Amino acid sequence: MRAVCYLGDRSVAVENVPDPVLPGPDGVIVAISATAICGSDLHIYHGGLGAPGTRLGHECIGTVVEAGPAVSGVRVGDRVLVSAVIGCGHCDPCRRGDPVLCAQGATAAFGTTLELPGAQAEFIAVPAADLFVRRIPDGVRDDDAVLLTDVLATGYLGASMADITPGATVAIFGLGPVGLMALACAQLFGPAQIFAVDLVPERLARAAAMGASPIDATGGDAVAQIVDATKGRGVDAAIEAVGHDQTVLDAVGVLASGGTASVIGVNLSSGLPYPMGLAFLKRLTLRAAFASVPMTWPALFPLLQSGALTLPEIFTHRLSLDDAARGYDLFDRRLDGCGKVLFSL
Amino acid sequence: MRAVCYLGDRSVAVENVPDPVLPGPDGVIVAISATAICGSDLHIYHGGLGAPGTRLGHECIGTVVEAGPAVSGVRVGDRVLVSAVIGCGHCDPCRRGDPVLCAQGATAAFGTTLELPGAQAEFIAVPAADLFVRRIPDGVRDDDAVLLTDVLATGYLGASMADITPGATVAIFGLGPVGLMALACAQLFGPAQIFAVDLVPERLARAAAMGASPIDATGGDAVAQIVDATKGRGVDAAIEAVGHDQTVLDAVGVLASGGTASVIGVNLSSGLPYPMGLAFLKRLTLRAAFASVPMTWPALFPLLQSGALTLPEIFTHRLSLDDAARGYDLFDRRLDGCGKVLFSL
Amino acid sequence: MRAVCYLGDRSVAVENVPDPVLPGPDGVIVAISATAICGSDLHIYHGGLGAPGTRLGHECIGTVVEAGPAVSGVRVGDRVLVSAVIGCGHCDPCRRGDPVLCAQGATAAFGTTLELPGAQAEFIAVPAADLFVRRIPDGVRDDDAVLLTDVLATGYLGASMADITPGATVAIFGLGPVGLMALACAQLFGPAQIFAVDLVPERLARAAAMGASPIDATGGDAVAQIVDATKGRGVDAAIEAVGHDQTVLDAVGVLASGGTASVIGVNLSSGLPYPMGLAFLKRLTLRAAFASVPMTWPALFPLLQSGALTLPEIFTHRLSLDDAARGYDLFDRRLDGCGKVLFSL
Amino acid sequence: MRAVCYLGDRSVAVENVPDPVLPGPDGVIVAISATAICGSDLHIYHGGLGAPGTRLGHECIGTVVEAGPAVSGVRVGDRVLVSAVIGCGHCDPCRRGDPVLCAQGATAAFGTTLELPGAQAEFIAVPAADLFVRRIPDGVRDDDAVLLTDVLATGYLGASMADITPGATVAIFGLGPVGLMALACAQLFGPAQIFAVDLVPERLARAAAMGASPIDATGGDAVAQIVDATKGRGVDAAIEAVGHDQTVLDAVGVLASGGTASVIGVNLSSGLPYPMGLAFLKRLTLRAAFASVPMTWPALFPLLQSGALTLPEIFTHRLSLDDAARGYDLFDRRLDGCGKVLFSL
Repeated sequence: MRAVCYLGDRSVAVENVPDPVLPGPDGVIVAISATAICGSDLHIYHGGLGAPGTRLGHECIGTVVEAGPAVSGVRVGDRVLVSAVIGCGHCDPCRRGDPVLCAQGATAAFGTTLELPGAQAEFIAVPAADLFVRRIPDGVRDDDAVLLTDVLATGYLGASMADITPGATVAIFGLGPVGLMALACAQLFGPAQIFAVDLVPERLARAAAMGASPIDATGGDAVAQIVDATKGRGVDAAIEAVGHDQTVLDAVGVLASGGTASVIGVNLSSGLPYPMGLAFLKRLTLRAAFASVPMTWPALFPLLQSGALTLPEIFTHRLSLDDAARGYDLFDRRLDGCGKVLFSL
Repeated sequence: MRAVCYLGDRSVAVENVPDPVLPGPDGVIVAISATAICGSDLHIYHGGLGAPGTRLGHECIGTVVEAGPAVSGVRVGDRVLVSAVIGCGHCDPCRRGDPVLCAQGATAAFGTTLELPGAQAEFIAVPAADLFVRRIPDGVRDDDAVLLTDVLATGYLGASMADITPGATVAIFGLGPVGLMALACAQLFGPAQIFAVDLVPERLARAAAMGASPIDATGGDAVAQIVDATKGRGVDAAIEAVGHDQTVLDAVGVLASGGTASVIGVNLSSGLPYPMGLAFLKRLTLRAAFASVPMTWPALFPLLQSGALTLPEIFTHRLSLDDAARGYDLFDRRLDGCGKVLFSL
Repeated sequence: MRAVCYLGDRSVAVENVPDPVLPGPDGVIVAISATAICGSDLHIYHGGLGAPGTRLGHECIGTVVEAGPAVSGVRVGDRVLVSAVIGCGHCDPCRRGDPVLCAQGATAAFGTTLELPGAQAEFIAVPAADLFVRRIPDGVRDDDAVLLTDVLATGYLGASMADITPGATVAIFGLGPVGLMALACAQLFGPAQIFAVDLVPERLARAAAMGASPIDATGGDAVAQIVDATKGRGVDAAIEAVGHDQTVLDAVGVLASGGTASVIGVNLSSGLPYPMGLAFLKRLTLRAAFASVPMTWPALFPLLQSGALTLPEIFTHRLSLDDAARGYDLFDRRLDGCGKVLFSL
Repeated sequence: MRAVCYLGDRSVAVENVPDPVLPGPDGVIVAISATAICGSDLHIYHGGLGAPGTRLGHECIGTVVEAGPAVSGVRVGDRVLVSAVIGCGHCDPCRRGDPVLCAQGATAAFGTTLELPGAQAEFIAVPAADLFVRRIPDGVRDDDAVLLTDVLATGYLGASMADITPGATVAIFGLGPVGLMALACAQLFGPAQIFAVDLVPERLARAAAMGASPIDATGGDAVAQIVDATKGRGVDAAIEAVGHDQTVLDAVGVLASGGTASVIGVNLSSGLPYPMGLAFLKRLTLRAAFASVPMTWPALFPLLQSGALTLPEIFTHRLSLDDAARGYDLFDRRLDGCGKVLFSL
């Protein structure tokens, strides 16, 4: 089959690789119909993180073409979505949809190592399918189903970790796909006002159209602008969806006493200079996480089905999988207004 | 001053009564500019509950005209709203805005006894004003400020007691003023769908316009309709805003396993026939309460100020206080489409 | 194999029945080494609830002797405990250990119907073994492992549903095996004082030895005694572990404003006369449930392993399974101080 | 009156200062009968933080000798305890006992600035006495009442911020007075095991006597020892009660996935090197705070009154206030086994 392979610094190609085989009696093979590039794929694309030969991608939907005998939740022919993140598939946390807490320490994302080939391919093998694969619920659009495999789940997690209560004031740093998802999800918790921070005018305009108060960070004074707008108080909750140390520090710095910063931008810093004194005096909470995707589905499925949650259009570019190299380049350099790329198969 | 007095069965009149005096150094006198009739006033109006001579009303806004020396939160001249419910004003629960849990057992609503004269009058005396009186926040409309004194607080409490989480399915029984407030507030908790139950077409239409799924209970099969619409599952949360035993039983009966019924309709039954077996097998929760009004303000003030919470038009009739008798009759018999009466002074 | 069968009103016998067969690829057969009689078995024993021929019992431990190919959590030869309550074994609630919320409505307890043969037998067939069967953790005594299959889980659930916070005052109605477990578990939530109510002096003495304040209900004034002891305030949380309407009403009646009653005594009443007016005025919460046993294990296993939770001696009579008829009679009539019967095999 | 004054680097003296005057109508004057030295007093004693002339101390009990006309909660002659931390006394957070979130930003501790004279004196003036002063509850020992003014409240806060649930594993770093209080309070949340880390054999022995598993950190391998003891898993909750960056990092480093670190050791670092990547991959939470003392009293008062919470003996040295200089020296240098000093008046 064809699969997108990482070749080395800023280079990918569609290569022929062996078809996957069923990963045990509880696994399935999914024929992929749509798969996206995620900002975290760029961490590998930029070099340093993944080995050349890594088969990329972790956001896909498709059709089950083979299912092991122990699989009960999906069948051959089902249209399904696949969690970007999986675990051992047998422990209590995995069973409750929370593979990030896998008791075996087997938390892993597709497409990040040689051992777990990615979702930018014709087929994908998924173990423990009853936990990590679900039928696309009736009434959920395919585009939204792709978002459910990672970025929407991540945005929801970011909002739910931020301790937002009705009437709260919220700030979101970063309005890429994950940040916009976090914005949509933060609105599920009844905030009075959401400040949406970014450098890019189009992103700010989209956030404003979703009801947020846009804050242009170009001048480097986003925190000051929000502090002013809240009459010096700051916000109750801040969500960081960028992945830089500085935006984490901004998220913490803009908090009112008692506030919570929720970090969902990929951040692998080993020594972020945390303002402990400020946190101590103001009783701040800092949470960080990547998404235990399946844990978010019981909330998100019915919200999308009923239309109570409507997502903005996220995919700016729809390409054939064969155009993967071009897709990565567009996305990486944000050429042609590229916000997120969807490959169809 | 003039005040609305209960004379006996279904009879009220505006009478001249002595002006109120300052209720201690922590109290204020408020000159009332607007005051409403609440459904619970009808419990007295219908006879049996309150003594003739009771000065009615517990929903008002106005201007502080006198303030005791120990009052720090409001000043003479401030435009204020007054909590319908008060407590001793000195215990921990009162101080945190929760007079229903008053440690002295001094929980009371204005206008329900001879000892605590009501809000349908030219002036009202309020003790412990720092706890029970607040400046009307900038940007909050006068009509909404009146709702903040009781029915909006009650609706918010009903929603917040119902354990609604994002993606939940909700049913609201009763779409009078309190039920519509509960509907608006339930939407702050991210439900996927809200079923709104009533007998009156206009009320159902209003709920539908607010985004709910209307359920016409005329045929007596509201529970069955909701069970059908949820494919047999029932709802995660039900809010009862009527005040009848049957609607409480409907709210419990429509719950899915693990669900919560939240009762905010005034219900003084001493022996409601509760389906304990069903509750035991399905792990149900039943909560009931009248509103600790000030406890809800920290959430509701910023939501109204920012416009994140918009309330439907509730007042159908605006009368002079001198027309109180007519107002009660219109409201009691729902004449002329009467939904709620506001008196101006 | 031999199994305890219900023959009709107050009559059981050990009969020869066919050996169970593996209930599908995800099931196991357990050779039972110890099995207990539960108070809820008496509901069938007393007639009316179960059909003659029902094979009784739902509390057992033993050794896996056969395991389906899809079972990963336990192996042949493992010493295991079996949840008294199971569900479909495939839905989200079942997977997270909560079969009472089974999305298929397949919640069932062993030994209560003809379709799900009971645990008072030589062998038991358990479906979805990865969810409902667990290895007995190292360091957990066999007696305690039996309690983990039902009564300890039920007591823990009762305590965890009661909203006990540090410093709270608690009342427990009924000090049979479940009530004593609830008492032990309530102490995990940091209460200031626990009132323990029963009629039987020995039970009251045991509760006192566990640190509770005993309340002798013989005079019918348990609620009044507790109200007096709390200077009129009542308790924050009440746990009902009897199964009578009156004790539920006592549990509700003894609550302070804002309190919660948690009902774990089996109660199948269709119309318990609930004091709705009291609940409304005092903001009370009523919860009821039978136990989603596996949900409690992640908390209870380490507590028993570390010794942080020590359980009182519950089994007063240890008999051979062949003495089942005598065991039921002893337990039913509380002869010879019988508190709970354990059969060994 | 006499008061302990900070003179400059490692020097204090008892000096004659003017008697305090009533700080407004809502304030009181308390004649102090016992007052302690806290570890945080040493921050000033060591120089750099407070101005010479600062009147030290923030932990005291005594008798009300004067009360403003607006004070309702205490009277002249009452034996009282005084919160170490106060706020504006008028905002919602202050009223609910949470001055750290004071809406006016007026959070302050006695004895840390020239403006708010301290508690190591004959008298202390306390504003907003209804919020910050309480009668010593019946049955609470004077020593424990002193602990309630700061270190016990801090320990309780540390435990309650750590998300400890029944069955959890906990680590406490630092077994000085605050750490021992945190240990006693952590036990209110039902943990399976508590690891108690320190360098000092006597402190480890005391923690062991309280039921904890002692971890001698002398070798610098405390984290490794705990990871070993938990079979590589780490702990669910860690409480840091030292005030050093390294122990904060240890508290974070010892967490299992999903864990929470709660920092109550005074830490004013502006750039603690936080392991953001680890926190992101393991979904960690970091909370820090100094204590909103009055917020903890509703839980702690009844626990001490009933004896459900028993505190270890904390005060190793009891001196006259006139011996303040010697007390500071003993405490600072831990001479003569000094753990905490109590001055009597």
